[in-house]
Amino acid sequence: MRKNYLLAPGPTPVPESALLAMAQPMIHHRTPQFSEIFKETAELLKHVFQTQEDVLILAASGTGAMEGTIVNLYSPGDEVIVVNGGKFGERWGKISESYGLKAHWLNVEWGKAVDPIEVKKLLDANPNVKGVLVQASETSTTAAHPVKELAALTKDKNCLLIVDGITAVGVFDLPMDAWGIDVLVSGSQKAFMLPPGLAFASLSAKAWKFQETAKCPRFYFDFKKERKNLKDNTTAYTPPVSLIIGLREALKMIKEEGLQNVFARHDRLARAARAASAALGLKLLAPDAPSNAATGVFVPDGVEGGKLVKYLRDTMGITLAGGQDHLKGKILRIAHLGYVDTFDIIIAIAAIEMALVKAGHKLELGKGVAAAQKILIEGYK
Amino acid sequence: MRKNYLLAPGPTPVPESALLAMAQPMIHHRTPQFSEIFKETAELLKHVFQTQEDVLILAASGTGAMEGTIVNLYSPGDEVIVVNGGKFGERWGKISESYGLKAHWLNVEWGKAVDPIEVKKLLDANPNVKGVLVQASETSTTAAHPVKELAALTKDKNCLLIVDGITAVGVFDLPMDAWGIDVLVSGSQKAFMLPPGLAFASLSAKAWKFQETAKCPRFYFDFKKERKNLKDNTTAYTPPVSLIIGLREALKMIKEEGLQNVFARHDRLARAARAASAALGLKLLAPDAPSNAATGVFVPDGVEGGKLVKYLRDTMGITLAGGQDHLKGKILRIAHLGYVDTFDIIIAIAAIEMALVKAGHKLELGKGVAAAQKILIEGYK
Repeated sequence: MRKNYLLAPGPTPVPESALLAMAQPMIHHRTPQFSEIFKETAELLKHVFQTQEDVLILAASGTGAMEGTIVNLYSPGDEVIVVNGGKFGERWGKISESYGLKAHWLNVEWGKAVDPIEVKKLLDANPNVKGVLVQASETSTTAAHPVKELAALTKDKNCLLIVDGITAVGVFDLPMDAWGIDVLVSGSQKAFMLPPGLAFASLSAKAWKFQETAKCPRFYFDFKKERKNLKDNTTAYTPPVSLIIGLREALKMIKEEGLQNVFARHDRLARAARAASAALGLKLLAPDAPSNAATGVFVPDGVEGGKLVKYLRDTMGITLAGGQDHLKGKILRIAHLGYVDTFDIIIAIAAIEMALVKAGHKLELGKGVAAAQKILIEGYK
Repeated sequence: MRKNYLLAPGPTPVPESALLAMAQPMIHHRTPQFSEIFKETAELLKHVFQTQEDVLILAASGTGAMEGTIVNLYSPGDEVIVVNGGKFGERWGKISESYGLKAHWLNVEWGKAVDPIEVKKLLDANPNVKGVLVQASETSTTAAHPVKELAALTKDKNCLLIVDGITAVGVFDLPMDAWGIDVLVSGSQKAFMLPPGLAFASLSAKAWKFQETAKCPRFYFDFKKERKNLKDNTTAYTPPVSLIIGLREALKMIKEEGLQNVFARHDRLARAARAASAALGLKLLAPDAPSNAATGVFVPDGVEGGKLVKYLRDTMGITLAGGQDHLKGKILRIAHLGYVDTFDIIIAIAAIEMALVKAGHKLELGKGVAAAQKILIEGYK
């Protein structure tokens, strides 16, 4: 007997009520019964995206919504700035180049946030740039980019601010309309507390203008067609019915908790994870601009990161994420987004402490847990 | 209290064991635990596709796999023959043209199968044609195209036979390797007895050769990248974990029943539906080449098809499909694919009889049911 705990930055744990909703007998998607569910879900999504615009629901991974954004808004030869501060920033660039866009790569050290001044310089030097592509939360480095400041730079230009909010929407405050974000994309398996399989995209009026002249080829990811279908409470192609039924449940939970309370919970959990890391002497990967989605820490010298992740998962039942690409084996990522609360953090920190001790690292058991508790207790009256 | 029955050509009913498998707590996709499930699932898929080739698993509706096929195998300007005998045949053409291919449209009357001689003529007249795009089962018309004969036409040419098997794979015999089908695509919500959200594609060695030189832009649907990942028991982007876990359960059921027995069951159910229709004087939409996936019948004169579908669904709890495009309101489609057996057909026929009587149509109650029973009884020792 071993209990398993999922604390990776996606997929995240799925609430029992959503699991049970999805386990109900299948229904057809072209029925008033499903249309009603779809309509309610689409409305609830707008609330979480903090927008009056439509939020398109796509049958795809998050990357599908990223690609959809590029092909629906641009033409080959169009210039964009790619904020490349991690694996997902790089992905924006790869997608853009796959479709013949000209990418200005703005490389940012992994773990750092982009400096808006650098973006401004690039924008000034390249007046034809029609888009700035960035992550609100770069999952691979656990850093958060300054979206609000970037939005101010593109606002009065013929240039869109395009934000991958896959591990940000529903995690921390990212008011799309208020800040002037032009495209915000996300995915089901993050703060939406669902299995993977749904991607979301919302476009500002300014972005929809770009759509009218964009010439990249597209068929499956056709945002105009999806918007038209959305108004009829359906999708262009067969939607993942069960995931959408689960999404309604999860979105209801978010609404009931209150969006600001959800953000506050994530903030508390993230601060607890950071405080615990500091107490244990684990160096943060993104100390200056940490995302509230996950906390990345360097594995101590003398400990093999890959083995640590395996030990935690296979022996202790705790699934955390390691590092990607050049950070492989060097970091641990403790996720705290979605259906996660106080005792998930306690579990994660306690497990890391014990696994480090087992790996021969010297530390005082309980020190990280205590540091986390001091912050987590704020959540209780 | 009203019990509901889903008898539409997708989504189809999901077996309880698959629903429960999908309702288990979420697991991470980059773990040995998921890799093992993925590997087993990919092997089982090959069995149902009757191929030694890899079957790619995509997070998308079936249309995504159709688009993926075009963009991975062709370049703008390439010529293809589109067998346009219904809504999904038309879709092959629309996708092709969206990516700048030159489509030779071979229009076929809705409800008819394409005549291989017509395809041969077009192939002879257009020696540069590099693909024939067809449905094994055209869901919108319930007709089946002669895939085996078409495969013989393309076999020795620099031309691929590309088959949409979305409502065919796992329904009737479609041995990909034995017949020389070059691309076979399908989707989870049909004979695979799952919710929508997964698409499948398998390519012959000849098709993979085309992939090497194809220049259509692509990123999300990158078959080469997916094949590479498949060999590592994973996907390029986050897979719909729960759907894949459900897929394994459903594929195990298919294997246990035996593929040929599954085909025989579908054949028996289809013949029963057709016999019942004949007994009730309901004209078949595709009498010459009926698909075993669904039986389309014309609604009798004097009965409004749209109202009939609504009555069946909203009053009787029986979800059947009506017609699409110019057949809207004119036909009923009784689906008999996937997790469907004897008494589902009895229910469908009995309900149609009663709904037609309620609509003022004169018929002898039970006559269709009896005709169906005479065939369905074959299934019992």
